[in-house]
Amino acid sequence: MPAAKSVAASPVMPGISAELAAELSAYLARVEDRFDVELKSDLAPIASLVRHVARFRGKMLRPMLVALSAGAVGSPVTDAHVVIGTVVEMAHMATLVHDDVLDDAELRRRGATINHLKGNEAAVLLGDYLISHSYHLCSSLDSQYAARAIAATTNRLCEGELLQLENRGNLDLTEATYTEIVSRKTAALIATSCRLGAKLGGATDEQVAKLERFGHAIGIAFQIQDDVLDLVGDVREVGKSLGSDVAKAKLTLPLIHFLQTAPQEHRVLLRSLLKSEDADRPEKVRNLIVPSDALGYSHAVAKRYIDEAIACLSGFADNPSVSALREAARFVVARSV
Amino acid sequence: MPAAKSVAASPVMPGISAELAAELSAYLARVEDRFDVELKSDLAPIASLVRHVARFRGKMLRPMLVALSAGAVGSPVTDAHVVIGTVVEMAHMATLVHDDVLDDAELRRRGATINHLKGNEAAVLLGDYLISHSYHLCSSLDSQYAARAIAATTNRLCEGELLQLENRGNLDLTEATYTEIVSRKTAALIATSCRLGAKLGGATDEQVAKLERFGHAIGIAFQIQDDVLDLVGDVREVGKSLGSDVAKAKLTLPLIHFLQTAPQEHRVLLRSLLKSEDADRPEKVRNLIVPSDALGYSHAVAKRYIDEAIACLSGFADNPSVSALREAARFVVARSV
Repeated sequence: MPAAKSVAASPVMPGISAELAAELSAYLARVEDRFDVELKSDLAPIASLVRHVARFRGKMLRPMLVALSAGAVGSPVTDAHVVIGTVVEMAHMATLVHDDVLDDAELRRRGATINHLKGNEAAVLLGDYLISHSYHLCSSLDSQYAARAIAATTNRLCEGELLQLENRGNLDLTEATYTEIVSRKTAALIATSCRLGAKLGGATDEQVAKLERFGHAIGIAFQIQDDVLDLVGDVREVGKSLGSDVAKAKLTLPLIHFLQTAPQEHRVLLRSLLKSEDADRPEKVRNLIVPSDALGYSHAVAKRYIDEAIACLSGFADNPSVSALREAARFVVARSV
Repeated sequence: MPAAKSVAASPVMPGISAELAAELSAYLARVEDRFDVELKSDLAPIASLVRHVARFRGKMLRPMLVALSAGAVGSPVTDAHVVIGTVVEMAHMATLVHDDVLDDAELRRRGATINHLKGNEAAVLLGDYLISHSYHLCSSLDSQYAARAIAATTNRLCEGELLQLENRGNLDLTEATYTEIVSRKTAALIATSCRLGAKLGGATDEQVAKLERFGHAIGIAFQIQDDVLDLVGDVREVGKSLGSDVAKAKLTLPLIHFLQTAPQEHRVLLRSLLKSEDADRPEKVRNLIVPSDALGYSHAVAKRYIDEAIACLSGFADNPSVSALREAARFVVARSV
């Protein structure tokens, strides 16, 4: 069980007890199994394509939140939690695969080949395959509650992505619209992971609502941190290509704040960099942003959401899962990966 | 109600009674309404993007089959039939929008611009938005039956598309694999439209199975006819760009048959044309195929599926809906659009 090992040692949960870590590892191993079973195809070429998907396998944050939200309301993880953990991870992976299409497109602008083209088309179809299987698995549950919640969430997720696309190159993007985008494209699915974990654990409506708000708040903080890392992270630590927001003139919180508060000449410089086609503009933007207060401001905003999230946990009887949720929230803004 | 008018005069249903035509028109108008309500967004830019989707609105074949399958088992169309009609049309449109991405990619190979790029990305996201809303609407029904059936169908649909992609450029594609692709990518959703129309109309298991087989058979015939039209249709009649299968080296039934049965020198010529990059190879292929028996053979295969479909209706008490299904089946292979 490689997943189990990596989770036990996962930096996502630094303050977690050994017992809970073992429970989570067992749960995540069940999620991975369900994942593979659901995606199994009787067609050999599909099976081979699906294997490629494994490389998108993420930190399993969302399934982990499903399990911890169950634990927070005193419920063991049930088979329904395994199903929902798999469903949310699969939906998340579908968005990663389709994001890849969009990135792939960028790459191809600089040198299209038929291989790239096939890769792009395969990515569209693989993303569709994942989302279809996610709904399919979700519809195996007895009630429509989760299916309705998941589909409503993916509706919001698509809206967030579309709103973001619509605002690409919009140098006057406001913090309010940025928050709206992040709320939909990232926070919604994290919130729903917490909501469903609690609901399927027999939580009261109030507990469900609190954990949903918890997930929503850490989701926004998570995305802010992601955006900060895209701007100034160390590519060796983060482990994925960075600077893509600047390359796509996609305004994120530090840039928005900078464009509103920096000295006039700096704002003018940033605007012209964002409009330029210089290959090294991510580096130039980074050099402009780092000495300003834009990163500190973004961190403070993220921290405010984390405080909000932790406040949502105050009504819960303390137990290892509640502690782990609190740790997870703190880790979101501390992480460098 | 422009939809109502176009349906009443629709060539899809030439032998339909005036009364049934009026019922279908009213039903399709309800489907269109539900469509618009489901896709409504509180975000202005999304609303504007969604309006573009209207241009993909098709012949509404699938919702029509939902309603006729209900009628075939003596059921009126209920609100659940309106929901399912909308769900299947929305899922179908999602596939059209994503097919468009793939085509768009082709175009961009010959001259990429940022506008094209944005169009492509928007198409990926719009397709996702449509499929998400399709599942969302489906999950509003009381039972999981339809949700499970729809998701299983989109699983098959994605497999068909992936299998097709995998076989692009495969000049040794067999008729069996072609049928497998068509069965999944096209026939599955048409079969499910019939199945759910019947099931939600209170049909017996035997009736449901028969109508599903009916839909599956006309679905295969429909795709064969589509592929023949892509090869030799009149672009002014068909109303969409043709020759794309040849341009993508996507083997369809007439080409497969030709490569197996034509005189050796003709086969060699077709293979070299399919491998070439000539801009006019669709025309050259057409000139090679038309005098052969490849079109006649394809038509005969399609006709065999239509006969199979009509045989599935034999156990049903005759009524206007059953007659209309029979007419629809016959029209599938007779159509030139």
